[in-house]
Amino acid sequence: MHAIILAGGSGTRFWPLSREGCPKQFLDLTGCGSLIRQTADRMLHMVSRSHLWIVTAEHQQVQCLAHVPDIGLSHVLCEPIARNTAAAVGLAAIALVQAHGPNTVMIVTPADHSVANHEAFTEALTEAVKRAKHHDEIVLLGIRPTRPETGYGYIERGKCRDGHVFAVKSFREKPDLPTAKRYVEKGGYAWNAGVFVMRAGIYLEEVRRQRPRLAAGLDAMAADLNNTDIRRDVYEKLENISVDHGVLEGAKALSMIEVSCGWSDVGGWPALADITPSDHDGNTVVGRTIAHDSQGNVIYASPGSVVAVIGLRDMVVVHTPEATLVMPKDRAEDVRVLHNTMERHEK
Amino acid sequence: MHAIILAGGSGTRFWPLSREGCPKQFLDLTGCGSLIRQTADRMLHMVSRSHLWIVTAEHQQVQCLAHVPDIGLSHVLCEPIARNTAAAVGLAAIALVQAHGPNTVMIVTPADHSVANHEAFTEALTEAVKRAKHHDEIVLLGIRPTRPETGYGYIERGKCRDGHVFAVKSFREKPDLPTAKRYVEKGGYAWNAGVFVMRAGIYLEEVRRQRPRLAAGLDAMAADLNNTDIRRDVYEKLENISVDHGVLEGAKALSMIEVSCGWSDVGGWPALADITPSDHDGNTVVGRTIAHDSQGNVIYASPGSVVAVIGLRDMVVVHTPEATLVMPKDRAEDVRVLHNTMERHEK
Repeated sequence: MHAIILAGGSGTRFWPLSREGCPKQFLDLTGCGSLIRQTADRMLHMVSRSHLWIVTAEHQQVQCLAHVPDIGLSHVLCEPIARNTAAAVGLAAIALVQAHGPNTVMIVTPADHSVANHEAFTEALTEAVKRAKHHDEIVLLGIRPTRPETGYGYIERGKCRDGHVFAVKSFREKPDLPTAKRYVEKGGYAWNAGVFVMRAGIYLEEVRRQRPRLAAGLDAMAADLNNTDIRRDVYEKLENISVDHGVLEGAKALSMIEVSCGWSDVGGWPALADITPSDHDGNTVVGRTIAHDSQGNVIYASPGSVVAVIGLRDMVVVHTPEATLVMPKDRAEDVRVLHNTMERHEK
Repeated sequence: MHAIILAGGSGTRFWPLSREGCPKQFLDLTGCGSLIRQTADRMLHMVSRSHLWIVTAEHQQVQCLAHVPDIGLSHVLCEPIARNTAAAVGLAAIALVQAHGPNTVMIVTPADHSVANHEAFTEALTEAVKRAKHHDEIVLLGIRPTRPETGYGYIERGKCRDGHVFAVKSFREKPDLPTAKRYVEKGGYAWNAGVFVMRAGIYLEEVRRQRPRLAAGLDAMAADLNNTDIRRDVYEKLENISVDHGVLEGAKALSMIEVSCGWSDVGGWPALADITPSDHDGNTVVGRTIAHDSQGNVIYASPGSVVAVIGLRDMVVVHTPEATLVMPKDRAEDVRVLHNTMERHEK
């Protein structure tokens, strides 16, 4: 059993913290360590250090090693160009098959999500591993929704297969609010957390069946895994497709295991409220803050600094030594716009 | 003719900029130099370097010299304890009388105000000096109000005495909004800018008549002006009273000269809008700022940093490397509360 951390993100939603080539997975948003470090810790409850892998961009290799020094250099698989997750999982799969054979169970997880309840998460993942070992299936973790979130993809649950294991009826794109409300009220829909388990050979079979071009690329790389020229040539021609769209949705056999584990995809500053307890005024605060007559805010003060707010409602305030960001919580999507403006200015 | 800059302020309204023993007069709020530096420059249009004086607190002597290196050490008069402006002007008056006699004309100005139109200001002050030279009067500068400001004291204009010189009918405390509106509509009321001119002997006569205890203290200090022990003893016993309440309001002969010169007392962060032009969205911006869909804000970014705001209306946002402050413009008074909270925390 091996664990694969997908750390290819290049997010800009956490500006100004993420401004300098430091995407979300490397941010320490809560003072509890970076998200990739926390993800590695979760995985190290499942597998030994020598069975931990990271797939990342070439230029982020050093950062990955700095945050997860437990891992050996050869277990950080570098992508020369970002080609989305179907390829990233494929690269890990061929490396695993070469080293340990096609029956190796692989746990796949994004590097930049957060889980509050490690025990529940580990328990569900252990069940998923058990299922994947003995069935030719891809087993997904589905998160029981706690609110009608429109920012997540949903998995529709099918029939019960065995204990906590269910069939997957369908994948649902990010819904509008009425649809999301219906999902939550009706039940039987889970958030797609991007965590799944299967044998490496099963993944490669599905790629071969559904994505012949990707399969050919993986074959070419597998012929000489250490050859970075081949890898670059292959990646340049690969299609950019996610593992969900490209492989999971069309897979022959899918299962899911539901879990409530305080999961968040940490999709932007307002999500700090998901991963940090709030005070009696509903303010979510990281760092030293003085909030006077203020409610429902998300406030981040970098170490050694202080943020003071007066008469503020439902805002995001972020302080770093170099920058301050202020916006209503419901405008967090616009941080991308800001980031682009900033980049134009800096050129 | 000499100019006296009163630099005794210890303001806390410009937190976080004013946090570290750096009151308002030493702040460079607009990138055009500190307020005391700008005040000195205004006075140096009226008097030579050797006729410029500063009255300040002992512990601010070095800062004063750093900001106004034009001045000689002996012209920085230090107060051992803050005892308000009646005493500060008195200290300057006895120093002037000893050095140059009682007929020396003294211009008194606060260190921490702002004037946009130097020419109009200098012109009015020159008229005030002319009047004070030849009349036993205290001559005040009154600022023609541009809005019904409730944060300023007003001077009610009396009869015309000569050209632009008017009698003073009364002093009016900070009014409520309806009263302030009436003042502005009716005319004949000017903002009290705390700038006035008279011969040093006239001031001391008024002190002797109205404030015998202060007069006795000034006499004691005048006996040995360089003796800091005497000065400390005297100051410890002085009453804490402003020059307006203690001397001007009860003065035998007062005149005023009105002027429109883009004056502001720079009373807090929202006043940045008085002393800096705003952009087409009504945002007043000092430093590097990106304002996306935001109107009517006052934004301060310290040098080398950036402030980004999204969807913000009528807010104050201040960034320094160590701190961020966010509040609605109409809550600026609460900065004092904040400052107190902060101090308690830091103890």
